[in-house]
Amino acid sequence: MAEDNKKGVILTGDRPTGRLHFGHYAGSLANRVKMQHEYHQYIIIADAQALTDNAEDVNKVRTNIIEVTIDYLSCGIDPAVSVIFVQSLVPELFELSAHYSNLVTVARLERNPTVKDEIKQKGFQRNIPVGFFCYPISQAADITSVKADTVPVGEDQIPMIEQTNEIIRKFHNLYGAKIFPEVKAAVSNVARLPGIDGSEKMGKSLGNALNISASEQEIRQAVHMMFTDPNHLRVSDPGKVEGNVVFRFLDAFDPNTSELEDLKEHYRRGGLGDSVIKKRLEGILIEGFADTRRIRRELENDLSYVREVLREGSRRAREVVAATLSQVRQAMGISYDSFRP
Amino acid sequence: MAEDNKKGVILTGDRPTGRLHFGHYAGSLANRVKMQHEYHQYIIIADAQALTDNAEDVNKVRTNIIEVTIDYLSCGIDPAVSVIFVQSLVPELFELSAHYSNLVTVARLERNPTVKDEIKQKGFQRNIPVGFFCYPISQAADITSVKADTVPVGEDQIPMIEQTNEIIRKFHNLYGAKIFPEVKAAVSNVARLPGIDGSEKMGKSLGNALNISASEQEIRQAVHMMFTDPNHLRVSDPGKVEGNVVFRFLDAFDPNTSELEDLKEHYRRGGLGDSVIKKRLEGILIEGFADTRRIRRELENDLSYVREVLREGSRRAREVVAATLSQVRQAMGISYDSFRP
Repeated sequence: MAEDNKKGVILTGDRPTGRLHFGHYAGSLANRVKMQHEYHQYIIIADAQALTDNAEDVNKVRTNIIEVTIDYLSCGIDPAVSVIFVQSLVPELFELSAHYSNLVTVARLERNPTVKDEIKQKGFQRNIPVGFFCYPISQAADITSVKADTVPVGEDQIPMIEQTNEIIRKFHNLYGAKIFPEVKAAVSNVARLPGIDGSEKMGKSLGNALNISASEQEIRQAVHMMFTDPNHLRVSDPGKVEGNVVFRFLDAFDPNTSELEDLKEHYRRGGLGDSVIKKRLEGILIEGFADTRRIRRELENDLSYVREVLREGSRRAREVVAATLSQVRQAMGISYDSFRP
Repeated sequence: MAEDNKKGVILTGDRPTGRLHFGHYAGSLANRVKMQHEYHQYIIIADAQALTDNAEDVNKVRTNIIEVTIDYLSCGIDPAVSVIFVQSLVPELFELSAHYSNLVTVARLERNPTVKDEIKQKGFQRNIPVGFFCYPISQAADITSVKADTVPVGEDQIPMIEQTNEIIRKFHNLYGAKIFPEVKAAVSNVARLPGIDGSEKMGKSLGNALNISASEQEIRQAVHMMFTDPNHLRVSDPGKVEGNVVFRFLDAFDPNTSELEDLKEHYRRGGLGDSVIKKRLEGILIEGFADTRRIRRELENDLSYVREVLREGSRRAREVVAATLSQVRQAMGISYDSFRP
């Protein structure tokens, strides 16, 4: 697998439940574009995982497979370098999950803080679908299936990586074969982007997201509506930079950091209007992502290319994952070579 | 699928955790031998399910796949008529399970009485492996994968069939396609055989089983040790027929029911020794299963034939199950024909 001088294998990806937004860009997409040249990078479009709590809205998941792929490509993910694949088109992942599910107890899953939080967030309680409850196991399958050693995550996802490493250790101990590398959580040091309304998290379902695919008009509108400092009433008033969404965005996207520091100073002591900083952000988002919008328009008119990317990526991923599964069955002692059809 | 004048499709099978015993024969094998001519009969050797609570003893599961197959063949299961297959060699079953697991809540699984009982029996409590906890979903996948409409079960397994029908209904409602027949539990009216020690259940793990593959010598020994009526001390004493293991066996295997009724009468009023009824049972088991033992010896010397049965059965099952899975994905709307590799 590890040809060359690449540093290792990354698994990353998204649940296809909506177009990607600037929070995704700052938090992971930008990093993926860079990392794809340094690592073997697999990007999973986790449709099966998305279905665990969207069984009644398959259409959303299906259409967003294409949308998310266009987001990837328009942001600079290069399918010749990164392997972009659709989870359910690599059915070996379902079998891997099944084998791992014998190595994890119900009690252990219930203790997983990430799952606990999400159950609370989604208001599931005990009516949580079994598939959703088990998704840490499915993620362990995704990660190990390509023998990833590095998984970029937010702080809140660290318990998922711990769960994966537990499964790996249990597997190695039980079956006496060291197949998988230990997985390292590459925690992003990029601060999470807030929603345009100032709430801590940007999310499509929260109605406060600004999509990467937004038109110039939509960007202007969103920036216009962005939460700043509610006590910064007159231009001459001193303003707060902390919690100010416009500055959070500028922190993420403004290439000129020294100018940005000066602006923050100015804003703090008073005399700098919101309209100035909003104008600046607007320009950065509109000009800085002009290529992204242009490429998206082109791809929307060339869907057969987008589909070909998914077809070829899924084919490549499946080759790798099938080889891993074969090693797993070998280690477990269930190759059954003498009576396998 | 339904060529001809067969009555429907049966799914039945066993977890390969030990050789089959006379309890299995009376409870289901005899019936399968008959039913295979009246129904399309699929017999699943549920290795993946067996692994859910035997992850640390794969060897037991693997070797018993062969042993159970020999038991089947030696008892008269005809692989030209019945499809004998290995669960994990039909990997589409793992994917089916995954899709179904989104249609069942954790709370619903916890309420399943069969699972509850088995958790208690195995002393698992919350340390139950996730795979084991989910096995009703996996069984629903097995059953629906061949579109079975009839599943022979004991009383205690009826909740599993209810769970399957719930999943089927939920699937049909959600995806607006009627793919599966309602499943009927064919509850055996054969009384369950007790262990040779008189306890209610015969089981390998209980150490009170008499295997179908037992030698003449082992049969004699087991019958000799069988629990009768502990108060039937002298031949002239009246004896109890109820709870008497020898009579329970005779009920199951003695072809001459009127003679058997006379013997019971005689035993009840006194004057009939245990040795007489044991001699009778011994003869019936040794002569009645002479062919079974002979065929087993032949197959043990022709393992390549046994493996060929599994290979061919698994191939045939996989064809059918893959077609079902394809319908399932079609109904769900995740065929992805335009970008499937």
